[in-house]
Amino acid sequence: MEVYLDNNATTAVDPAVYEQMKPFFCDIFGNPNSLHRFGAGTHPKMMEALDYLYSGINADDEDDIVITGNATESINTVIKGIWIDKILNADKNHIIVSEVEHPAVTATCKFLESQGVSVTYLPVNEEGIVDVQSVKQYLREDTALVSIMWANNETGKIFPIEEIGQICKEAGVLFHSDATQAIGKIPVDVQKANVDFISFSAHKFHGPKGVGGLYIKKGNKLTPLLHGGEQMGGKRAGTVDVASMVGMGFAMKLAVEALEYEATEVKRLRDKLESAILELPETVVIGGVNNRTPNTTLISIRGVEGESMLWDLNQKGIGASTGSACASEDLEANPVMNAFGSDSELAHTGVRFSLSRFNTEEQIDYAIEAIIGAVKRLRNLSSSYAYAPESHKSGL
Amino acid sequence: MEVYLDNNATTAVDPAVYEQMKPFFCDIFGNPNSLHRFGAGTHPKMMEALDYLYSGINADDEDDIVITGNATESINTVIKGIWIDKILNADKNHIIVSEVEHPAVTATCKFLESQGVSVTYLPVNEEGIVDVQSVKQYLREDTALVSIMWANNETGKIFPIEEIGQICKEAGVLFHSDATQAIGKIPVDVQKANVDFISFSAHKFHGPKGVGGLYIKKGNKLTPLLHGGEQMGGKRAGTVDVASMVGMGFAMKLAVEALEYEATEVKRLRDKLESAILELPETVVIGGVNNRTPNTTLISIRGVEGESMLWDLNQKGIGASTGSACASEDLEANPVMNAFGSDSELAHTGVRFSLSRFNTEEQIDYAIEAIIGAVKRLRNLSSSYAYAPESHKSGL
Ligand SMILES: Cc1ncc(COP(=O)(O)O)c(C=O)c1O
Ligand SMILES: Cc1ncc(COP(=O)(O)O)c(C=O)c1O
Repeated sequence: MEVYLDNNATTAVDPAVYEQMKPFFCDIFGNPNSLHRFGAGTHPKMMEALDYLYSGINADDEDDIVITGNATESINTVIKGIWIDKILNADKNHIIVSEVEHPAVTATCKFLESQGVSVTYLPVNEEGIVDVQSVKQYLREDTALVSIMWANNETGKIFPIEEIGQICKEAGVLFHSDATQAIGKIPVDVQKANVDFISFSAHKFHGPKGVGGLYIKKGNKLTPLLHGGEQMGGKRAGTVDVASMVGMGFAMKLAVEALEYEATEVKRLRDKLESAILELPETVVIGGVNNRTPNTTLISIRGVEGESMLWDLNQKGIGASTGSACASEDLEANPVMNAFGSDSELAHTGVRFSLSRFNTEEQIDYAIEAIIGAVKRLRNLSSSYAYAPESHKSGL
Repeated sequence: MEVYLDNNATTAVDPAVYEQMKPFFCDIFGNPNSLHRFGAGTHPKMMEALDYLYSGINADDEDDIVITGNATESINTVIKGIWIDKILNADKNHIIVSEVEHPAVTATCKFLESQGVSVTYLPVNEEGIVDVQSVKQYLREDTALVSIMWANNETGKIFPIEEIGQICKEAGVLFHSDATQAIGKIPVDVQKANVDFISFSAHKFHGPKGVGGLYIKKGNKLTPLLHGGEQMGGKRAGTVDVASMVGMGFAMKLAVEALEYEATEVKRLRDKLESAILELPETVVIGGVNNRTPNTTLISIRGVEGESMLWDLNQKGIGASTGSACASEDLEANPVMNAFGSDSELAHTGVRFSLSRFNTEEQIDYAIEAIIGAVKRLRNLSSSYAYAPESHKSGL
């Protein structure tokens, strides 16, 4: 059996989404900016896609949703746009982010630091989220931007976006939220949340790779990251990738329709998997079980190195992750695990299982059996676990 | 009949390219960076795609080809990377480009000018290309980059890239060429050409939209435009769009194989179309007929406004353009036409026909008839043409 439990890294394109994209490769292939029928032929489905995107995040008609290449591009557009507009060409010099943001945020901030920008990395509490009050505490006169993710890719923990948005609004500071792991998993309402910008990637909600979105609340101007033609109202140049845009729009529609299923059935399967693992001794859900996206669990299994676990599971046809896919090529400790300040042995023991609406009960039952088998095998091999006091009792 | 003669704006995905992409939407959908089989399953075809790209432009194994979202992103990556590395953080302050670059180059340069960078826009001669000597003439001590396109999108004129590359190399100045309109139309050999960087977009050579390439000669470092994960060796973050990358690679392979056909058959059809139009009085090929990509002709037809012509042709199922698709939403005079310094009436009379290997003789015959009919009709309506002295003779 093959069981894909790495949906926070990427998802399969929903076959219904793919059906919508198909005509736009070889048949309705014109450049939407062209004046002739080959170009104009793309317009109706592009408009429909925009409608799905606007209603999917409850954007106002006067807000912008800019189609980008992925969440990384959207995030770079916001942070570097603010850098240019408010820091290089004005008198701000400070940005606040959380310490558990995705590298698309943190690596961009590291770059800005190399350019003299002051960046505050807010710590997370034992629940894995930032304290609302800490945002207030670190705001400065020269703060140009607060960027806090909507939900974390590793733990699934949901951040208090509405409250943070309110604080930023009162302080007159721009607020961006990386909603890449929230869309399609929990409701995302940009108006309720007081955000100025959100970023997302279609491939995280059963849309295609290579396309993302950037929401810009009306009234906000941003120097574009991609200068060039007048596409996207001058906000993002480059020939529009119609197939991908249509795919992302339809994926958004389906994802929003499936939110109820996500909150009930996907959650039930995630909980079933999680409970079965938690019955093993010395296992813990990082950040605790409250207030998470319904599809995600990040579990530390003492004595079991995450990478070894992945290899065992891979042999059995199961795909999981030790953390974000971007980081998994290097074997460094997971930065989210580090943020929890656990001992450094624990930092290498996190395994993330992330489900989707395409996982079945049968798959989860199969996965549970395989995981328990793998833990037994690996704990037997593990010298560090053998010497840990509690392990003597369990025989695992 | 439908006849698509706007292949410089975008092309149809070759059905054989689409076949290669198909498995990567719903089936082999993993994130290439993941450690499990779902991720690793993407690797063989990605490697194959890279091979096609490297051999297609004759890149050295140690050079980089970075997969981007489109040529616009590649171009912004080069120009803004140089800005950050050599201007903001070092002591250069000057960039040289031609005045007929695509907006992806010129709009980016306008932005840099707003940031205090000095930009020289080299004029083109009556042949529509920059003089090799003028590059030499404008080089300065503080020149950080020369960016000259390989072939022009409007006229198809081919620039003396090898010679310009040689001059830059001797002067120790970095050289970027926007090869978006060259790839798939004429041979592009990065080693022969002495370029440090080239940019291109797959959708201009029968690959998918939303994916492009950036060639970086070994030894060149560039601050990335997209910071984030470690994809593309840290040179371009963001989850790799496997389907598009595979599509671009295969499109490159097919395009290179078809270069001979392009140089003979596509050229023959383009010449047939062009000659038929040139038989009408007061028509002229902008930039002359020498040294062009084999698929392109930009023709000025006195007394016939380009936009009106397009509408007439569109009624007959023919797609053409007045210039680059990016610019065609606004009705401004075509910047390339302006560059030729023709009188301003002429500046609105350019129509671009750009063929591809999918055009047939039958289509070209049909187009010739339709174009001649449209010219007659529009010249009859045109007051400016009626009052032009020469038109009295022709009765057209
Ligand atoms: C929270 C978060 N932000 C941003 C990204 C970047 O998405 P992409 O690689 O599609 O640009 C990811 C995915 O890896 C993510 O999980
Ligand atoms: C010469 C040239 N450069 C760059 C571009 C930009 O390509 P894209 O829109 O795919 O980024 C184009 C296409 O419009 C072009 O013709």
